[in-house]
Amino acid sequence: MLVLTVLDYLGTFAFAISGALKAVRREMDIFGLIVLAVVTAIGGGTIRDVMLGLRPFWFTDPNYILLSLLAAFAVFALYRLVSRRETVLMWFDAIGLGAFTVIGASKAMLYGLGFVPTVVLACLTGIGGGIIRDMLAGDVPVVLRKEVYASASILGAMIYWTLGRYGVPTHFSMPATMLLVTAVRLLSVHYGVGLPKAYPARPAPPSA
Amino acid sequence: MLVLTVLDYLGTFAFAISGALKAVRREMDIFGLIVLAVVTAIGGGTIRDVMLGLRPFWFTDPNYILLSLLAAFAVFALYRLVSRRETVLMWFDAIGLGAFTVIGASKAMLYGLGFVPTVVLACLTGIGGGIIRDMLAGDVPVVLRKEVYASASILGAMIYWTLGRYGVPTHFSMPATMLLVTAVRLLSVHYGVGLPKAYPARPAPPSA
Amino acid sequence: MLVLTVLDYLGTFAFAISGALKAVRREMDIFGLIVLAVVTAIGGGTIRDVMLGLRPFWFTDPNYILLSLLAAFAVFALYRLVSRRETVLMWFDAIGLGAFTVIGASKAMLYGLGFVPTVVLACLTGIGGGIIRDMLAGDVPVVLRKEVYASASILGAMIYWTLGRYGVPTHFSMPATMLLVTAVRLLSVHYGVGLPKAYPARPAPPSA
Repeated sequence: MLVLTVLDYLGTFAFAISGALKAVRREMDIFGLIVLAVVTAIGGGTIRDVMLGLRPFWFTDPNYILLSLLAAFAVFALYRLVSRRETVLMWFDAIGLGAFTVIGASKAMLYGLGFVPTVVLACLTGIGGGIIRDMLAGDVPVVLRKEVYASASILGAMIYWTLGRYGVPTHFSMPATMLLVTAVRLLSVHYGVGLPKAYPARPAPPSA
Repeated sequence: MLVLTVLDYLGTFAFAISGALKAVRREMDIFGLIVLAVVTAIGGGTIRDVMLGLRPFWFTDPNYILLSLLAAFAVFALYRLVSRRETVLMWFDAIGLGAFTVIGASKAMLYGLGFVPTVVLACLTGIGGGIIRDMLAGDVPVVLRKEVYASASILGAMIYWTLGRYGVPTHFSMPATMLLVTAVRLLSVHYGVGLPKAYPARPAPPSA
Repeated sequence: MLVLTVLDYLGTFAFAISGALKAVRREMDIFGLIVLAVVTAIGGGTIRDVMLGLRPFWFTDPNYILLSLLAAFAVFALYRLVSRRETVLMWFDAIGLGAFTVIGASKAMLYGLGFVPTVVLACLTGIGGGIIRDMLAGDVPVVLRKEVYASASILGAMIYWTLGRYGVPTHFSMPATMLLVTAVRLLSVHYGVGLPKAYPARPAPPSA
């Protein structure tokens, strides 16, 4: 399916860029940059495939790895051009989040999963790569920051499932849902939107 | 098997509570709280099932996810009531550790694993969720703290295996082993019991 | 195949030693030491087998776990003898890296993977255990440090694949490649060899 493939390559490239950018900020060398780009790009989809009992998607199609390498070299060569904007990393991460959420949901539905596990698997696919990237880089994982992130992915997965149930064709629902997730993520950061929290009753302990 | 199902739901609920409590202390919003509750609750069992070549248990039974959501909402609504006791998180974590150790051992034996891999898989099932929870929350993983934790799980798995070999019926050995693991964990914390260490020959380096 | 088995046991023992040494430095007790030794030793190979759709290698051969226990007890008993040399941990880690890279590449080729996924899987097998070890211990993962590490593994996997394509017998190519990876890693640390980086255009932010 053409739309699916395009989204998949787009998400892979975007997440690879985000991994490579993070590696540069951590002053890693070119190989560390490659490793972080590849792992971020294939992490979420690998978790998804292993859980579905499939071999990881990159076993049979080397393009995903090669695309990640391309992203790594592009960042290596052009870092000075993009580094001035703090938001570049966030943009690529949001694109990857949207694309991989939709692909995760799509593959889960293809293998006959119900609503609840589809949403969970779509969310894991969407947030998996970014979590691995942040944890390898020693940062607080992006899902933990006080921002709309996993919620955008969960929302997108629920909408994608619903659209599918009402017979909306995937060549419309796929890009639409992806754009929605990416937009929700970016707009929430831009406007500083937060969600309700349960504030601790005591002054927050520094570590618990 | 009724006992197994009850233990499984109990462990799921307890670990979900522990994940949600941790998320609240990290001042995460309601969706972050849901993600940490779900991942903590299904993490250990998912590792177990993937290693056994099975699809994760929550693919076919959405109750585990729904139970985790319920736990997340309960913590969100009632946090002020429970937060005064530092020990609440530890209690729920100990219950999850006990329940999941037994379930991991039981499933490993069902699939014909020998003594050593059964103990390892039971321990991974028991400690997996808590490790994922702590690492996502940026804390030192609970297994690393200078306390009886993995040892309680390993001990329980060894005893459960032995009871099974001597024909003790599982409706007795399951709850008994679970209570044992939970009790060993809680008592060791209460009395500050430690295990022998190999002290470094030099003053401990801050990071190595 | 004898060479494969010897390499596998060697890598397992070396990584288990490295995990146990790390645990001692973190002042973990004897069970924490066992857990870190076992997880470091079996982590990379478990990731490899799960991705290949196989049951983890230690399900059927308990020797891997027992060898890890032996390494843990040896470190526990003899820590004072080896702790004076900062480099001991690095040596064992380099041996494990070399052995597991070759085994990962070998198993990937056995299951018919192409060049690119073979290199990725070999690298994941080689660096997986050390990453898990460092992350559980709360350290910066070894791949992230500004040193030749993943690059040695990638290089070795590429050479091993090439030797295989030209019909070089594995009883030569296996130990040769393993020695190469280990030597590249150790020599690069000894001589402080680095690889090119893309330096940030601005003063490096402390956390991004």
